[in-house]
Amino acid sequence: MLAQTVAATEIDLLVVFLLAAGVGVFVAKVGRFPYTIALLIAGFAVSGIQAIFGVQLFAIELSHDLILLVLLPPLLFEGAATTDLESFRANLGPILALAVPGVILSVVVLGFVGQYAFGFPLLVSLLFAAMILPTDPVSVLALFDELGAPERLSTLVEGESLLNDGVGVVIFSALLALTEESIRTNTPASELLSLSRLASTAFEIALSSVGGVVVGLVAGYAVYRVMVNLDEHMTEIVLTLILTYGSFLLAEHYLHVSGVIATVVAGLFIGNRGVEYAMSPQTKLSIFNTLETAAFIVNTFIFVAIGATTPVRQLAEFAVPIVVAIPLVLLARVVAVYPLTAITNQFSPNGVPRDYQHVMVWGGLHGSIPVALVLGLPSGFPPGNELRAMVFGVVAFSLVVQGLTMSRLLDRLGIATRTDDQRLYELLNGRARATDAALDAAERLRKRGDIPSDVYDDFTEEYEEEREDLREAISQLMQENPDLRREELLIGERRLLQREKNAIREAVQNGVIGGDVGDRLLEEVDLKLNRVNDGESTVDEQEEAYEEFWRTQAAEFGLDIDPPGEGTSD
Amino acid sequence: MLAQTVAATEIDLLVVFLLAAGVGVFVAKVGRFPYTIALLIAGFAVSGIQAIFGVQLFAIELSHDLILLVLLPPLLFEGAATTDLESFRANLGPILALAVPGVILSVVVLGFVGQYAFGFPLLVSLLFAAMILPTDPVSVLALFDELGAPERLSTLVEGESLLNDGVGVVIFSALLALTEESIRTNTPASELLSLSRLASTAFEIALSSVGGVVVGLVAGYAVYRVMVNLDEHMTEIVLTLILTYGSFLLAEHYLHVSGVIATVVAGLFIGNRGVEYAMSPQTKLSIFNTLETAAFIVNTFIFVAIGATTPVRQLAEFAVPIVVAIPLVLLARVVAVYPLTAITNQFSPNGVPRDYQHVMVWGGLHGSIPVALVLGLPSGFPPGNELRAMVFGVVAFSLVVQGLTMSRLLDRLGIATRTDDQRLYELLNGRARATDAALDAAERLRKRGDIPSDVYDDFTEEYEEEREDLREAISQLMQENPDLRREELLIGERRLLQREKNAIREAVQNGVIGGDVGDRLLEEVDLKLNRVNDGESTVDEQEEAYEEFWRTQAAEFGLDIDPPGEGTSD
Repeated sequence: MLAQTVAATEIDLLVVFLLAAGVGVFVAKVGRFPYTIALLIAGFAVSGIQAIFGVQLFAIELSHDLILLVLLPPLLFEGAATTDLESFRANLGPILALAVPGVILSVVVLGFVGQYAFGFPLLVSLLFAAMILPTDPVSVLALFDELGAPERLSTLVEGESLLNDGVGVVIFSALLALTEESIRTNTPASELLSLSRLASTAFEIALSSVGGVVVGLVAGYAVYRVMVNLDEHMTEIVLTLILTYGSFLLAEHYLHVSGVIATVVAGLFIGNRGVEYAMSPQTKLSIFNTLETAAFIVNTFIFVAIGATTPVRQLAEFAVPIVVAIPLVLLARVVAVYPLTAITNQFSPNGVPRDYQHVMVWGGLHGSIPVALVLGLPSGFPPGNELRAMVFGVVAFSLVVQGLTMSRLLDRLGIATRTDDQRLYELLNGRARATDAALDAAERLRKRGDIPSDVYDDFTEEYEEEREDLREAISQLMQENPDLRREELLIGERRLLQREKNAIREAVQNGVIGGDVGDRLLEEVDLKLNRVNDGESTVDEQEEAYEEFWRTQAAEFGLDIDPPGEGTSD
Repeated sequence: MLAQTVAATEIDLLVVFLLAAGVGVFVAKVGRFPYTIALLIAGFAVSGIQAIFGVQLFAIELSHDLILLVLLPPLLFEGAATTDLESFRANLGPILALAVPGVILSVVVLGFVGQYAFGFPLLVSLLFAAMILPTDPVSVLALFDELGAPERLSTLVEGESLLNDGVGVVIFSALLALTEESIRTNTPASELLSLSRLASTAFEIALSSVGGVVVGLVAGYAVYRVMVNLDEHMTEIVLTLILTYGSFLLAEHYLHVSGVIATVVAGLFIGNRGVEYAMSPQTKLSIFNTLETAAFIVNTFIFVAIGATTPVRQLAEFAVPIVVAIPLVLLARVVAVYPLTAITNQFSPNGVPRDYQHVMVWGGLHGSIPVALVLGLPSGFPPGNELRAMVFGVVAFSLVVQGLTMSRLLDRLGIATRTDDQRLYELLNGRARATDAALDAAERLRKRGDIPSDVYDDFTEEYEEEREDLREAISQLMQENPDLRREELLIGERRLLQREKNAIREAVQNGVIGGDVGDRLLEEVDLKLNRVNDGESTVDEQEEAYEEFWRTQAAEFGLDIDPPGEGTSD
């Protein structure tokens, strides 16, 4: 009966989330243990208990469609929407290199080596490679967030993982079609893999990727147009929801191009252009809050579910190929990461440092995409059980072992994760914001001048004292840590420049200044932004202070203007 | 195939939300047309098109379980969590009177009259009454929000509708069991409705209601205990989610008591006590944001779905009983509302005004609960089609006709909805907040003292000018509208008193002040709050200004203290 089904499904979901809440509370108490990995381990525990005692704690099934059609779109969209387009663009070279030729290269390498290592036919081995190699934005984003990795490193790994999913899925689909044909017609792969066939497959892959980009842009732009003329944050949330799933389905289901790429592109578009032009502050807040919550809930479910559906018995049965696969998968990543970043480094003054490359190899975690793809294999696919065990095994290893050792790797490489100073600064800053907020509220209420303010005076006094103490502490901390000060300076500058851009664009849109002047001004700000993104402050290196366009113009006009750099404090 | 199902369901849902987004954009442009009613009408249009042209635009099915187990819990929880316990308590008398004896009385009246009017057997007629009479928090809350009704009126109608759902569902279940027994054993209802049977049914109803309250309190308290020691807003959102569905399922599925009441009580508990003690400001913001978004999305779906699943052909077929039912349902409400509020008015110095009573009769909209209950009737239930047509007909009438005429009724009764002055005040106030926020941001960025501030100075100057103009406009508006000023004063006072309470409680919890002193202080604040809730300011009616406890204490101690009321501005 449906009655049974709805209630039963709901109870199973409640059990999953109860478990997750328990993990959440545990992690909050213990501290510094990644939430996602803790969820996965709890899932393993459930799977183990179910296998050993033959009981079923909950009946959660992951399927290809559930992951790809329901769970993945909000995760991809959120990941893309919260990516800063500015720094994404600044690192587009290495990101694209790794996401497109990088994936292809490592699929080919792992595929060919896998033939001998696993004893699979070539096509099956390539299929395994295409399934396992996409790195998972979910796991990577979660982990980097928790570790507080430097922003540029995050952008590189995030950007790659957002894009290579799409490429991986497209390659997988093309290979699966070939494999099925090979099985059906009983033709060996070598015959199918003729040059013309390879060319047409490559063309399909390119078409699907480009098609995904186009769908994402068109859908994103359509929703953006509607949002620009609207200020109803709830309807804008519904539109975002429609865009998240709609761009995926439109691409995948109706146009047969890459849904993953479409959703990522739509998310990048709305998360950047939409946020800047089409959303009021309240809308922005609710949309990002909603996306964050949705992604968190989906994420929580996925990690518990991957853990709980891991076929523990099969992992034991196929222990040998799993153990062989783990280093080979890493090898395939090595083969792509080092050479390709070496090449892109040739074209950029600001290359990817060697240390970052190590992190990109070890931090390429494999998560829900491989699981979705292996679960989507047609039933009765020849080495299905073995492939499933291998995928779950490699995923489990990468998430747990690579994930848990990540912070140690960053430490050893001397890549600053959040330092103790930074933590202290955040603590002080957070508390300072809290007291400011309280004082603001008090001030506003008192300004109305209508309330018995005796009680309130005490609070204000206390808060002001605390604020003073906090300021002193922060200023002391800053003096002792010039690096911290410098970083905060850059962050502040970037924000301010972003606001300058917004203001200029708004002024252009309102017709206050002409488009040509606007472009000139924007160009200038972009130039500064680039310098800030490269870690150069436009403020405290006065010897090469930038001379703004308007200064030259004003000077030409005969006005008396302070040279740049003066008139600002410090 | 499951593949088909997941994608197909998703596409149907996307079509529903596309329609809803269209309605949202339309309503935003047109203005002043209730969103929920527009959704319903769009749903009717779909249903009409599907019936006339025989096409299917989307395959959305509402079922009893879908509504009760999936859609209703978040709506009830959100409604309860956003209800202010303070003003709920202040109006508990009439709310309880209408929700418990009121529903029973009107079910009995409509049931007995319906026998003759519809020609149903007594039990079926009672069953219809129990289905249709609960008023819907969803529709009522949405409508009152949009109309800007006075807070006390909202509390009355909201409170009643939150509680009478539970009572209605419990009565319905008891009657359905009786009816099925009557059909199965072929015994006429009159024999089954013996005095002892009635007594045992009444006992069941009481048990189920009290059981629901207990489950809600216990579950709410359990989650609250966990939240108190936690500051992870995401985990707290998951806990809220678990509580929403968990309290419902625990009550309904495992303990066979009222799930609706359990969820409402849990929502009231967390939304008030939880918010005060167990949530950081960020958690509060995300939880309410999430609840609001979830409720909006569910709501959107329900209204489109009710419209689209309305059986238009059957409405025509059973037009006569529907037309008869509409005034009878209103009559049943009249019979409950006027006498019962007259009785509770005897016990309260601050009775429900006659005008409010009219609004409570006409504003008792019937929405998703009747639809859920009629869809949950066992298939093949004798007058099933007729009952369904009658329920959908009355629901449609109440939502569309009563809903759309509501603002006119409020106008005619002279019950202030938001006036033009108030709208203007909100506009000015909103804009003032925006400029304040912009100035704040500017200030904060400048304080860091690290930025070329030339561009920013211009902005600040502009904003400050605007802020000055806004202040002048607001102060002028206030002077011309003493009522507006008075209302704002009360709102401000209430907020401040709430904060006083929080601070005192926190002080008690931290051991800064003893529990007995704390209780005394809290009592005092509650007294003031009651006066404020009754519309009396504790500030500007100085002749009866309240002398705080600490003043007497301090005076006894020999301190020199200004008498109350002085030392505040104005």
